[in-house]
Amino acid sequence: MFADSSSTPLTINDERFAADLQALGQIGWAGADGMQRTSFSAAHIEARRWLFDRATDAGLDTRVDSAGNHSVVLPAADPDAPTVLLGSHLDSVPSGGRLDGALGVLAALEVVRSVKDAGLRLPVTLEAVDLTDEEGTFVGTLGSWALAGQLTPGMLRTPRSGREAMLDALRRQGLSEEGLLSGARRDPATIAAFLELHIEQGPVLERIGTQIGIVTGIRGNASFQITFHGAARHAGTTPMEDRRDAGLGAAELILGVRDLITREFPDCVANVGEVRLHPGAFNVVPELARVSLEVRSLHDGELDALSDAARELAAQSAERWGLGLEIDAVGRWAPSPTDERARRAIAGAAHRLGLSAIEMPSGAGHDAQVMARITTAGMVFVPSREGISHHPDEDTDLQDCINGTNVLLGAALELAAESRH
Amino acid sequence: MFADSSSTPLTINDERFAADLQALGQIGWAGADGMQRTSFSAAHIEARRWLFDRATDAGLDTRVDSAGNHSVVLPAADPDAPTVLLGSHLDSVPSGGRLDGALGVLAALEVVRSVKDAGLRLPVTLEAVDLTDEEGTFVGTLGSWALAGQLTPGMLRTPRSGREAMLDALRRQGLSEEGLLSGARRDPATIAAFLELHIEQGPVLERIGTQIGIVTGIRGNASFQITFHGAARHAGTTPMEDRRDAGLGAAELILGVRDLITREFPDCVANVGEVRLHPGAFNVVPELARVSLEVRSLHDGELDALSDAARELAAQSAERWGLGLEIDAVGRWAPSPTDERARRAIAGAAHRLGLSAIEMPSGAGHDAQVMARITTAGMVFVPSREGISHHPDEDTDLQDCINGTNVLLGAALELAAESRH
Repeated sequence: MFADSSSTPLTINDERFAADLQALGQIGWAGADGMQRTSFSAAHIEARRWLFDRATDAGLDTRVDSAGNHSVVLPAADPDAPTVLLGSHLDSVPSGGRLDGALGVLAALEVVRSVKDAGLRLPVTLEAVDLTDEEGTFVGTLGSWALAGQLTPGMLRTPRSGREAMLDALRRQGLSEEGLLSGARRDPATIAAFLELHIEQGPVLERIGTQIGIVTGIRGNASFQITFHGAARHAGTTPMEDRRDAGLGAAELILGVRDLITREFPDCVANVGEVRLHPGAFNVVPELARVSLEVRSLHDGELDALSDAARELAAQSAERWGLGLEIDAVGRWAPSPTDERARRAIAGAAHRLGLSAIEMPSGAGHDAQVMARITTAGMVFVPSREGISHHPDEDTDLQDCINGTNVLLGAALELAAESRH
Repeated sequence: MFADSSSTPLTINDERFAADLQALGQIGWAGADGMQRTSFSAAHIEARRWLFDRATDAGLDTRVDSAGNHSVVLPAADPDAPTVLLGSHLDSVPSGGRLDGALGVLAALEVVRSVKDAGLRLPVTLEAVDLTDEEGTFVGTLGSWALAGQLTPGMLRTPRSGREAMLDALRRQGLSEEGLLSGARRDPATIAAFLELHIEQGPVLERIGTQIGIVTGIRGNASFQITFHGAARHAGTTPMEDRRDAGLGAAELILGVRDLITREFPDCVANVGEVRLHPGAFNVVPELARVSLEVRSLHDGELDALSDAARELAAQSAERWGLGLEIDAVGRWAPSPTDERARRAIAGAAHRLGLSAIEMPSGAGHDAQVMARITTAGMVFVPSREGISHHPDEDTDLQDCINGTNVLLGAALELAAESRH
């Protein structure tokens, strides 16, 4: 009765999926300026309406919760059956790409439609969900936090947009802080699993020529503002040996962190994304250098060890060049491994479809990271061309999108079948 | 008849000099915000008036040329006698110190007064000059360029203040572009020498415990904007080996330049005063890094060799990290050695006064650098406390200021005596 028990796995409707991918990619598209579909923008609202129109066309139920999460539902015969949730987000960053988030929502819709078309009677409710504000126009992965029942008033206090802008936007959508904080929460017992298909947003799958990434977990990150204090001096009159040049500390840290990752933390990544020298003139030795450092790891202990090693490097650089040092921890987001059952279901689906697959971590945060707190969560990656993302050039071959959606379908059916036991 | 032929050299009036130094330091002083006496500001004009009042008190002539240079003159008996010019500038940078420039003008005034008080009859006219806009509110060392007859229309085209602001300011002072370009020029044959006393603006004299610096020349400089081009990528999803991180090129250049000076160009200095990473976010690998590099040397050929070596370092860094490279030459200011005769006169004066002295280059630009193009030019340095300059904390012990002024007096008398032959 289930696709995974037959010799030929159930697959999606390629033409319908391709046409919809094309159509959705037009909503909010601004040419060279890329995808302009930030949360609750006119384009975002249009995309959500478009999604529900597709659901209605397919004879599926729709549902909006009090966090604005938009769901397309194929109910189980048994009203008490748990739900297999599939989804991602329709919102984009400013000047983003067509696929980040959108692919996962459309794939989820297509899986639900394909199951309905095939007349399969699953022991679970199947639900495709577009989760609110993953990209954090207001608060990153807001819809997931609300659905998982883990949103706190503190998280709504300083939204990236400013608080007034957020409250205005919520009001215009008929939403409220109270609704976000309580009304959207689902009882974890009612959710059998959460699966998300997403573009890799990195170059690995393309480089190694592999079709499917089975996400082992989402890297946590820790970020720091590191400030070296030297002394501003006239760069013409001050001999090199009399300088305390804050820029030297920054430079040595940048190279040192790179080396640290290569030698001691090969499974981690780190980035110095910003450096500011003060006062910032050709002829003044910098008295201040502020460095923005971010480190990422899949494992909690490793993230701490890497953070400590980076701090130690900064201290060594400061000492070598006679500089003062200040380190401010800006943020920490714990690593979240995916569920082993979900990984097995994804691997099995890829195998049955004859697709090459590899286990890999995700460097970016996703809705699945939040959902992993309350349910069996898994993620499927498909290759990103040249690893480009959050950019108009973000792209993935159509066949890779189809492959990923078929894997999502197969894994969903597998988890649905398991949920009977 | 001359001080340098007697056993006890002529010296200045310490009390008068100290009182005037105190009084001049009040004009434009803004407490913690330091000296606010930019060119043609109310405080600057007040300081020039104060200077002329002192001249009148001392029974000296005054003169303003068509570049606004303010001179205090003790004429020779022979109207055809050449002039020994002594001077510096009364203007300051914004939030500068009390002594940069001002010490040299006041010392020049004190030398002229002391010669007059002593009733010496010199074979030269002695002139203390406050040269217009050394600090470049409009155009750096403007007054010297005009006096040397080397100002060109091109140099007035893009003043730092903007052209309209400069023209307005000139008009308010009764000056004009035409006057600057021709009227202020002196025939080099009428100038016997130019001497300038200045604070060192560096830490060397204080560190080695020496009272007088005999400036061997003013370092030239060459400045470059060096841009490394990488690729902006998600810092979480892009493995280290797939990155082209422009920040690594910048970091390696910063450390490499420091090392280059230490190993191969120990008499030179270099500075990276500014670094900008683009887009400049925690989680984006920098696609651009712009580095502001300045190198300085006392010798023309060495300046070019150092510039070439720095370019080569940048090219190596770019190649190692797979980056594109762009190097823009921003400016070049040729080194200008001081005159041997002037150095000898300064050394002799210091020796006769029992002051310790050392030959040293000047890292900063000065009026003497321009004057050296048309006459025998020399500079005397006195120690700067902690090497601080262009800052409210700029300071020099009063005794060091007195010592320097006595050396200026002795050297002026020596060059005056030589001009007879």
